[in-house]
Amino acid sequence: MVLNNINKSEILIETLPYIQKFYGKTIVVKYGGNAMINEELKNSVIEDIILMSCVGVKVVVVHGGGPEISNMLKRVGKESKFVNGLRVTDAETMEIVQMVLTGKINKDIVSLIDRSGRKAIGLSGIDGEMLKAKKKLQDGQDIGFVGEITKVNVDIVEDTLNDGYIPVVSTVALGEDDYNTYNINADYAASKIAAKLKAEKLILLTDVPGIMRDPSDDSTLMSELKPHDIHVLKMDGVIKGGMIPKVDCCVEAIREGVKRAHIIDGRVPHSILMEVFSDQGVGTMIY
Amino acid sequence: MVLNNINKSEILIETLPYIQKFYGKTIVVKYGGNAMINEELKNSVIEDIILMSCVGVKVVVVHGGGPEISNMLKRVGKESKFVNGLRVTDAETMEIVQMVLTGKINKDIVSLIDRSGRKAIGLSGIDGEMLKAKKKLQDGQDIGFVGEITKVNVDIVEDTLNDGYIPVVSTVALGEDDYNTYNINADYAASKIAAKLKAEKLILLTDVPGIMRDPSDDSTLMSELKPHDIHVLKMDGVIKGGMIPKVDCCVEAIREGVKRAHIIDGRVPHSILMEVFSDQGVGTMIY
Amino acid sequence: MVLNNINKSEILIETLPYIQKFYGKTIVVKYGGNAMINEELKNSVIEDIILMSCVGVKVVVVHGGGPEISNMLKRVGKESKFVNGLRVTDAETMEIVQMVLTGKINKDIVSLIDRSGRKAIGLSGIDGEMLKAKKKLQDGQDIGFVGEITKVNVDIVEDTLNDGYIPVVSTVALGEDDYNTYNINADYAASKIAAKLKAEKLILLTDVPGIMRDPSDDSTLMSELKPHDIHVLKMDGVIKGGMIPKVDCCVEAIREGVKRAHIIDGRVPHSILMEVFSDQGVGTMIY
Amino acid sequence: MVLNNINKSEILIETLPYIQKFYGKTIVVKYGGNAMINEELKNSVIEDIILMSCVGVKVVVVHGGGPEISNMLKRVGKESKFVNGLRVTDAETMEIVQMVLTGKINKDIVSLIDRSGRKAIGLSGIDGEMLKAKKKLQDGQDIGFVGEITKVNVDIVEDTLNDGYIPVVSTVALGEDDYNTYNINADYAASKIAAKLKAEKLILLTDVPGIMRDPSDDSTLMSELKPHDIHVLKMDGVIKGGMIPKVDCCVEAIREGVKRAHIIDGRVPHSILMEVFSDQGVGTMIY
Amino acid sequence: MVLNNINKSEILIETLPYIQKFYGKTIVVKYGGNAMINEELKNSVIEDIILMSCVGVKVVVVHGGGPEISNMLKRVGKESKFVNGLRVTDAETMEIVQMVLTGKINKDIVSLIDRSGRKAIGLSGIDGEMLKAKKKLQDGQDIGFVGEITKVNVDIVEDTLNDGYIPVVSTVALGEDDYNTYNINADYAASKIAAKLKAEKLILLTDVPGIMRDPSDDSTLMSELKPHDIHVLKMDGVIKGGMIPKVDCCVEAIREGVKRAHIIDGRVPHSILMEVFSDQGVGTMIY
Amino acid sequence: MVLNNINKSEILIETLPYIQKFYGKTIVVKYGGNAMINEELKNSVIEDIILMSCVGVKVVVVHGGGPEISNMLKRVGKESKFVNGLRVTDAETMEIVQMVLTGKINKDIVSLIDRSGRKAIGLSGIDGEMLKAKKKLQDGQDIGFVGEITKVNVDIVEDTLNDGYIPVVSTVALGEDDYNTYNINADYAASKIAAKLKAEKLILLTDVPGIMRDPSDDSTLMSELKPHDIHVLKMDGVIKGGMIPKVDCCVEAIREGVKRAHIIDGRVPHSILMEVFSDQGVGTMIY
Repeated sequence: MVLNNINKSEILIETLPYIQKFYGKTIVVKYGGNAMINEELKNSVIEDIILMSCVGVKVVVVHGGGPEISNMLKRVGKESKFVNGLRVTDAETMEIVQMVLTGKINKDIVSLIDRSGRKAIGLSGIDGEMLKAKKKLQDGQDIGFVGEITKVNVDIVEDTLNDGYIPVVSTVALGEDDYNTYNINADYAASKIAAKLKAEKLILLTDVPGIMRDPSDDSTLMSELKPHDIHVLKMDGVIKGGMIPKVDCCVEAIREGVKRAHIIDGRVPHSILMEVFSDQGVGTMIY
Repeated sequence: MVLNNINKSEILIETLPYIQKFYGKTIVVKYGGNAMINEELKNSVIEDIILMSCVGVKVVVVHGGGPEISNMLKRVGKESKFVNGLRVTDAETMEIVQMVLTGKINKDIVSLIDRSGRKAIGLSGIDGEMLKAKKKLQDGQDIGFVGEITKVNVDIVEDTLNDGYIPVVSTVALGEDDYNTYNINADYAASKIAAKLKAEKLILLTDVPGIMRDPSDDSTLMSELKPHDIHVLKMDGVIKGGMIPKVDCCVEAIREGVKRAHIIDGRVPHSILMEVFSDQGVGTMIY
Repeated sequence: MVLNNINKSEILIETLPYIQKFYGKTIVVKYGGNAMINEELKNSVIEDIILMSCVGVKVVVVHGGGPEISNMLKRVGKESKFVNGLRVTDAETMEIVQMVLTGKINKDIVSLIDRSGRKAIGLSGIDGEMLKAKKKLQDGQDIGFVGEITKVNVDIVEDTLNDGYIPVVSTVALGEDDYNTYNINADYAASKIAAKLKAEKLILLTDVPGIMRDPSDDSTLMSELKPHDIHVLKMDGVIKGGMIPKVDCCVEAIREGVKRAHIIDGRVPHSILMEVFSDQGVGTMIY
Repeated sequence: MVLNNINKSEILIETLPYIQKFYGKTIVVKYGGNAMINEELKNSVIEDIILMSCVGVKVVVVHGGGPEISNMLKRVGKESKFVNGLRVTDAETMEIVQMVLTGKINKDIVSLIDRSGRKAIGLSGIDGEMLKAKKKLQDGQDIGFVGEITKVNVDIVEDTLNDGYIPVVSTVALGEDDYNTYNINADYAASKIAAKLKAEKLILLTDVPGIMRDPSDDSTLMSELKPHDIHVLKMDGVIKGGMIPKVDCCVEAIREGVKRAHIIDGRVPHSILMEVFSDQGVGTMIY
Repeated sequence: MVLNNINKSEILIETLPYIQKFYGKTIVVKYGGNAMINEELKNSVIEDIILMSCVGVKVVVVHGGGPEISNMLKRVGKESKFVNGLRVTDAETMEIVQMVLTGKINKDIVSLIDRSGRKAIGLSGIDGEMLKAKKKLQDGQDIGFVGEITKVNVDIVEDTLNDGYIPVVSTVALGEDDYNTYNINADYAASKIAAKLKAEKLILLTDVPGIMRDPSDDSTLMSELKPHDIHVLKMDGVIKGGMIPKVDCCVEAIREGVKRAHIIDGRVPHSILMEVFSDQGVGTMIY
Repeated sequence: MVLNNINKSEILIETLPYIQKFYGKTIVVKYGGNAMINEELKNSVIEDIILMSCVGVKVVVVHGGGPEISNMLKRVGKESKFVNGLRVTDAETMEIVQMVLTGKINKDIVSLIDRSGRKAIGLSGIDGEMLKAKKKLQDGQDIGFVGEITKVNVDIVEDTLNDGYIPVVSTVALGEDDYNTYNINADYAASKIAAKLKAEKLILLTDVPGIMRDPSDDSTLMSELKPHDIHVLKMDGVIKGGMIPKVDCCVEAIREGVKRAHIIDGRVPHSILMEVFSDQGVGTMIY
């Protein structure tokens, strides 16, 4: 398919209403899953972030850990114990988690944005005391330094946005009542940060096309859901497993003032742009 | 040809380097010719202006008069005298010129931009004393209130740009030494204003594809010319007639600090976008 | 009468309390009537505006059309139809109205202020989407593009005031629901703009000394009236004819937050200064 | 002579060019002589200061001591010694001088301005370390705490002007090399402060009409003098006695960047206004 | 006792929590008593003020008169009449009071601060119309120009604090309804100013260790008192005589929004620092 | 030794001149050595940083790696090769270096400052493209991702200082010409950053008392050295080994505009405070 300049210009013009709509608004992108591993997808996400930033969107990137944490644990010969399927995060594990999240993944994302011509700044929940947390019990059991957010202070995010940087946030928090650091679920942190920033959109990059009636059938994707619909879908067992905490984060964000939350497919290149700059949108929108 | 969202996103991404390049820069567009008459072209120019403004370009529109001046003169039964092919602009004619330029065409452009969701402001050389002029003789003969710019003060353009408006300028000037108003050639005014603003680009919308060795053969278009080339082409008679004042405006703008001047084809929809947001460019660039 | 410097200084000193009183306050002057035709009166109004601006008053000028619209209609051979004494404003008429108001009268006022050493900027209801309107029916009949204001956005007035310009406003509006432009009664627009700006004063320049019990006897001028008095005077038929819409504009302005509205005699040179900078005031004050 | 509002307005309008000329400019007034004693003259000076301030002039008042210092010295029974006609300022005398200047005269002027509706602030050379001085010898003799300015820091004058106050300065200085305070000649301090502020005008209020060829004949007043003229007039003995230091202050101010210095008659009410707001001016202008 | 650098650093570090606590907060110090007479104490107070200012405290100094007023009255041979132990302040006395307070004591404090390397500015209740007052009757009797504050305008204090100066205030006020100046009790003025500034602390420097059950026994000092305690102590006659107006000022300040008021011993060097920068505090705190 | 409040206040007062001297100035602290390992020393350094920040110093912390890098390499079973005593930094090693520096040590320092009540922000040379580097050869041999700084952009340091944060910088750089990250010697990076910031002081925390004639004899400490002295001492072999690069960094910083560089003993608690806030200073000053 050969596109000449004229066709391209028309496509550009089609995005105009979306550009105008999101100018000066805040969009929080939770970056994770395959889009963090595959090189091509990685570049596509960075390009989407930069394009949004260029057309006046205040983009905040919140990232998770991916498989690199497990790799590093393996490399240091740390064996993991599990409680109900959740890894117990002892002090040694937490040290590795913090290093990989804030020292490796975070800086790699910052570096990619920098090299594409925008200024990024790597932050964590520790910087500027952004996130405070306390120990989170899993089914009543202590699984170590896994935290639940108790306080969110987005001053440092707003300061760096106003200075013209794209803030990239890794979700490690300071202990509210102790001197430990805690690992925080990135979806959950993104939701809390988006809420505090009164963001226009929270976008969760996942490895599925969205919320589907039948996960094996893409045609059953539900494009728009209200919190109440979600409640029903959870009762009916349609939303289940790993999707539950994700939709919960979305619903909570909406309840605390975020305009729209999106669960989209990070495996499709430029899915963020498709969501933000076109009519159809992609994935599931919760609003 | 059916384009899905993915293809569209890729096209959007292709424009990224250009968006980054012109962010915060000033581009002066001289709007005239067929693009001012044909409804579809008109909309296409407005869309181009708005898109540039949305991605952070400081756009200044300078417009000419087009056939509406002649129409109005005809309607008031004013017969025109000519000296060497130039219309003599007596007081009555000047009154009509001012009304049509600043009261009709200017407000129509402002209105189109407003309705597309950006704030525009109509200015003339009279507002904020932007343009001062003295009488211009044509081959030694007085042809009335046709002026030559003696002073340019772009404060009002910068003030309104900084307040977030798109300034739309009609090229009527105050007399430097008398109480008359003067009609100013719009190419010439655009060139002077671009120079004073130290603009990144001056774009002249014309009714030809650019500067061609053989005007009847599009394949002889010269994409890039240096002032010296132009000097030679004028000597050789390749550049002649109505194209001469246009290239002179471009050369003068370059000499006074504008980075690049462009003569492009206003008859092609979105030719401005094609010039600004792609590698190939369109028309002739003088730099 | 010979006045030496000492006497002059004393007169200057007498104005001190008024200068202090209106420093930084907004005064909206509706400029129209004879003061727009007679050259001497014209200069006197401009001087008054400039003096107020120099002593720190934020002056906004709103102007009407005067006889120039009729002249131009005559020149283009446009015959006017009337409904109950009001001219039917068809599309062709509206085009002329817009051109004369925004392209001739407006620019002439701007030019006069500029030449007196202050910076003015010509605006219309179209610029910055200041005025939105819908069709106004006259006794149930469609009389064309005569509009009723539906929305007032004074951002552009405040932006240009803050940039140090004297805004001069011609009262043409954008259609709220269509793509037409509408002619707006200037008294009415001035009242609406003054209200939105929370102006200290709205001053209507008229061709009468003020509101009089007996229009043929200047000694029956009523200097101060409350909205209630006006209600009674209208009931009693003392206020009638063309004066009714003027007092209605004043009363509405007062109701929406303007401190004082004045109907003064534009045929007396410097009547604005006399009103603003002396104890006695002139004309009728509604408060 | 009865002046109606119309005549008054015309007089007001006559001042327009002067108001426009001095808008935002700095004028330093040295206040002293009879204008500090006579109640009517006092009020007239205060009115002049306030009017200038209202029309946008940055007025700085520098005042001398007048007869109140002698009165207070008499009241405390302090006898004065003299050296070549100059009072010896011992520590006790200096204490009285400082109290009268900064505690009585200064506060009385501030109080008068405050009560007329503008905010004034009393300063001395001590506040914000505005003036530093060293001992000045009189014909080689030590006459006590009479100082010569060694350093001028007008930060505090500019800060308070920018905060909207009229600074009123009494001319007591801090010792550059010791812990004493010094009395400074007010003409001299005003000249130094005006120079540092790059003032538009320095106005010295005196008890004579200006510089005259024959002091007994008002018709011999010289309206305009260049520094060179003054040099000649001093050589010729036309300028002599107490006038010499005054003209020296003026000449020095001019040399250090003040545009114009004026010696005017403080015994004529509103002589400052007459100088600033009329064509003829009064007294002698040095430029 | 020999202290090496290490010990000194540890002491410095001990003050850290206090420095952090008062950073950017306002502390009003009422300066009076022995600390104004004894040279060593004077220097110690100035050092305390400068240190607080250096570590980010917004310090405002309000001072009283001390014995210098009586001295000057004696020097001018003015005999004082008394009504119930209070000096009758006739016009002549008031003139001396104003001169000594604003012209001597105030400037001496400003001078001391300036010489220690911070910029101070001397203010009185007259400057910027900070304090307005009316006549205060003593037991129904007119005792002259002793005033009661009717209006406090701290704009000038805030302006000069924001410009980086340490304001030093002498407590002379303008008459609210007449053209006199009034002497104001400095404790009372400090209390009112602190309240208007919503100060963190009001510190009254006195010549006693604080409020004591038995004034002759230092060990009976009460470190902390609530307004209610004070009420009881006054009823019981424990707080009596000259201490009553001081505690009343403190209580009133607390009621109007000052966080804490302190009565401390100005005879102990650096008592202000001890209060502000240590845990124990000194004197009596009312909160 | 018991110190009462009075003694403590006197010590506080002694620091006044130093506090005044460094107010608003920038001090870059290179943090490393034992002071990074020993818990007590660690706290002492943090306290010094916070105290400086509280009294208005703009503190920038640049830190090295310490033994944690080696520990982590050991934990992942990475064996190190050496070239002339320098560890070869292959890709895997560099990954660990980056993680430990930016993800562990950096965040631990930020966390300590946060918990002490000031806001810190962790930065690396990657954030905001602060540091660009190219490969550094060791005696002509490629030892991997050890970098030499080619570009320093301190915008992000200044932005975060102006937002009120204490920037903590880990010295990893982006490749200037490739997509790798490089490990940068922290002394060298601190020197470059201090130079770009035109810092008042660069302080290198080391494990020696300073530069000594005889390293085994503390009494041979040289308190002050000029660049020329250092040249001579290097020629004479007095400065040798690991001290050479440190003094080179200091000399280069001085040459590029830093006022003073200090090599001090990080093993002595509060050595930074002792250097900055006392007369004697500690260690060796190069200026």
